[in-house]
Amino acid sequence: MQIGILGTGIVGNTLGTKLVEIGHDVKMGSRSADNKKAKDWVNSTKSPKASQGTFADAASFGEIVLNCTSGGVAIEALKMAGAQNLNGKVLIDVSNGLDFSKGMPPTLLTSNTDSIGEQVQRAFPEAKVVKSLNTIGVELMVNPQRLANGDHDIFVCGNDEGAKEQVKKILRDFGWKNIIDLGDITNSRGTEMYFILWIRLMMTQGRILNLHFQRQG
Amino acid sequence: MQIGILGTGIVGNTLGTKLVEIGHDVKMGSRSADNKKAKDWVNSTKSPKASQGTFADAASFGEIVLNCTSGGVAIEALKMAGAQNLNGKVLIDVSNGLDFSKGMPPTLLTSNTDSIGEQVQRAFPEAKVVKSLNTIGVELMVNPQRLANGDHDIFVCGNDEGAKEQVKKILRDFGWKNIIDLGDITNSRGTEMYFILWIRLMMTQGRILNLHFQRQG
Repeated sequence: MQIGILGTGIVGNTLGTKLVEIGHDVKMGSRSADNKKAKDWVNSTKSPKASQGTFADAASFGEIVLNCTSGGVAIEALKMAGAQNLNGKVLIDVSNGLDFSKGMPPTLLTSNTDSIGEQVQRAFPEAKVVKSLNTIGVELMVNPQRLANGDHDIFVCGNDEGAKEQVKKILRDFGWKNIIDLGDITNSRGTEMYFILWIRLMMTQGRILNLHFQRQG
Repeated sequence: MQIGILGTGIVGNTLGTKLVEIGHDVKMGSRSADNKKAKDWVNSTKSPKASQGTFADAASFGEIVLNCTSGGVAIEALKMAGAQNLNGKVLIDVSNGLDFSKGMPPTLLTSNTDSIGEQVQRAFPEAKVVKSLNTIGVELMVNPQRLANGDHDIFVCGNDEGAKEQVKKILRDFGWKNIIDLGDITNSRGTEMYFILWIRLMMTQGRILNLHFQRQG
């Protein structure tokens, strides 16, 4: 499958490399066509399946598009990618909207009555937005077995059932066993607000951790 | 130990009964001295260790005081209890500040840059506020073994180390094994914001659930 990745940070790098490794063709997009970090990533994969270009190039290329920019610039980056390149496609929003202006730990740019996932869906109503991977440190995203034999949970939410099934398939290919479908895109709120508990846990308990829900029955 | 409980709802009832069962003297407080629900609770315990009175009676009685009112009325109830009856005492804040005015699921009355726990600590600076038990359904609060042999997590946070140790002791007496100390009272934010994820999980996965953190090392 052809997959577009928006963002050249550690999240985009890690997801892009894994997607290439499991056989996908991946184009990493950034603001400029000759972004050094994107080129370095392409070289790092040593694979003809990796390429790079602008946000619009990556979105146009992808049958599935991953937003791996930070939440505060997600809408701007997606506008540069272009609605016409996103319409009808699965758009996986991995972002958290973090505000570091008040120091550590960060607060959220939006919470409680809205979320970045919902903002993205509203801004691109023809895209099939699925929020996922935003509750997991990058060490675990593509390597869930690294912790507790993979016995911990990841969430998906979004309005399009078929889109969520495609995302679940990718997550299973990454090794995820416990995938919880929370429902529609408004559930982005809960997974984004969880960040505030998660960051404190990382600060006190160590970076490599994830929640697992014990359930009765 | 003498313990005061503020609030006559299911949370106050459940915690009060358990505290009586494990040997404490418990006074349940409400707005009026002759609250029917509080009297019914006293009768239900069939124990001379249970009593009831006003918020001020319960706070004055308690060496430890539990706020089991809802977050939206917590400050008002605590003002009726009286700062002079709370000063220097451990005040366990169990509340979540839920706003049902927009329907289900609720939003929070405060989030992101503040929390009910912090509001309570600011309003009663001489009380030793410990936030706890607000991430657990009432079925599990005093009965953690009911789920996954008790292998799930509960949080405490607060500014006073000695106060947190007293609360941890009570939690261990309830049967809790995995008690995570998040740090100071600002960590109430994370545990209160987690509610938004938790309520969605309860709506999709069933009521009897709780998170357990898998950690590396």
